[in-house]
Amino acid sequence: IRQLWKARGFELKSCRESHLGDGLVHVKNPHLEAMDEDVLYHLDLGTRTHDLPAMFGDVKFVCVGDSPSGMRPFAELMQQELGLGGGGGRPADLCAGTDRYATFRAGPVLTVSHGMGIPSISVMLHELIKLLHRAKCRDVTIIRIGTSGGLGMEPGSVVITDTAVDSFFQARFEQAVLDAVVVRSTELDKGLAEELLRCSEELHDFLTLIGHTMCTYNFYEDGALCSFSSEKKLEYLKRAYNAGVRNTEMESTAFAATCGLCGLKAKPHTLHTSA
Amino acid sequence: IRQLWKARGFELKSCRESHLGDGLVHVKNPHLEAMDEDVLYHLDLGTRTHDLPAMFGDVKFVCVGDSPSGMRPFAELMQQELGLGGGGGRPADLCAGTDRYATFRAGPVLTVSHGMGIPSISVMLHELIKLLHRAKCRDVTIIRIGTSGGLGMEPGSVVITDTAVDSFFQARFEQAVLDAVVVRSTELDKGLAEELLRCSEELHDFLTLIGHTMCTYNFYEDGALCSFSSEKKLEYLKRAYNAGVRNTEMESTAFAATCGLCGLKAKPHTLHTSA
Repeated sequence: IRQLWKARGFELKSCRESHLGDGLVHVKNPHLEAMDEDVLYHLDLGTRTHDLPAMFGDVKFVCVGDSPSGMRPFAELMQQELGLGGGGGRPADLCAGTDRYATFRAGPVLTVSHGMGIPSISVMLHELIKLLHRAKCRDVTIIRIGTSGGLGMEPGSVVITDTAVDSFFQARFEQAVLDAVVVRSTELDKGLAEELLRCSEELHDFLTLIGHTMCTYNFYEDGALCSFSSEKKLEYLKRAYNAGVRNTEMESTAFAATCGLCGLKAKPHTLHTSA
Repeated sequence: IRQLWKARGFELKSCRESHLGDGLVHVKNPHLEAMDEDVLYHLDLGTRTHDLPAMFGDVKFVCVGDSPSGMRPFAELMQQELGLGGGGGRPADLCAGTDRYATFRAGPVLTVSHGMGIPSISVMLHELIKLLHRAKCRDVTIIRIGTSGGLGMEPGSVVITDTAVDSFFQARFEQAVLDAVVVRSTELDKGLAEELLRCSEELHDFLTLIGHTMCTYNFYEDGALCSFSSEKKLEYLKRAYNAGVRNTEMESTAFAATCGLCGLKAKPHTLHTSA
């Protein structure tokens, strides 16, 4: 794990900044500009209570992951890898007033936890994107890191996602907007995937490859309830593998769709720990 | 809030125990009995590492809610309301080895946090139900409590859910199991809803009523992205109200479907705070 963090630290330093138009983070909600105050409730931040451009305007990288306690050591490693703060204190949780998410800063790297599953990461991403927009951040790269279930791979390997697919191996994110179903693209930045792969070439302790990541709504299809045989499960996983899926997790389609729509260069970069 | 907790404390004491067959909590996974060890990973518990019947065998009520820090004061209030522990210490987090969920005991009342959204509560419910099954608990009543968005109601009112519906006002929970879509019923225990309403009659500070609760996959349909007008939103909410919906949240359909299938008497009992 320690070496994976290091790998990511290196990547974060070496990743070329991208320019998507003016480089600003876009929101696509015409109602926002008319608001007197934008309260980012689940992050315990707001436009009236906080000077967001001063606090976050120089953020260039956002790394998100599911566990709040897992993100603090990552922020500490970033601090160390980027030569910031010397032997200084631990990064403070910038959203300590809420237990929904944890947020840490290490220089240009903002780290935010997002909990488990699409709804939980969606709430965070909406507020994070509004935060980056309000703070007038430019050329932001966002990377999701975390554990995942590997498919036909050595435990401990790293999958860099090129495409997030749903349970039917389709590159789409279906979402109910009011009572209409909207289908969104889950394409990710191919250049960033290649860049991350090149960064990994200097590390030899584990396999890193580019593949599809399958995003599901449930961790347990075989927990307290199970309606299929082991054979049927195996046959399904084989079909997933043949469709290019190399790991499974629970957030990537929403991450890819939401960041993509807002002009963020995005990459779920997930580590699998179990075969 | 304090009075609401009290109300719930009273309800918990007065709710009649139900007998569903043998009163045991059922799992419907034929693979489970063959397992040497059942690791409840996200609760940091397991059949080999913990004596689950000794720790949890006498649990009669489970109250779940989204925020980990919100569940501790609730457990403390339960302790006080049930006359347990005198001026004793704060309830300890029984799953302190993980930051996924927080779990507290106050006599027969087990309190567990579940995070935000259907995937997050689903992971917890699968492990909780396996826990109650392994611990040989009998006649367990499970109640979800929490904040929600009210529809056409005074802020601070309490909605006792009779039926959980999806974004299309249907009493169903659609779930992908491998690559098949399975539709499950979201019916809740009508007797328990009536009982909770009777309990509320002794409290006069806020409105309590029985109604439908709408469960969505996203908190923000108008966050960083918004593709509809205020008029369209209002028209949709009016249709929801006419279909019997009195509040919205993000977990009730999965809660109703999963608990129902496992023979748990279940009730999302949600408090709305914003109109």
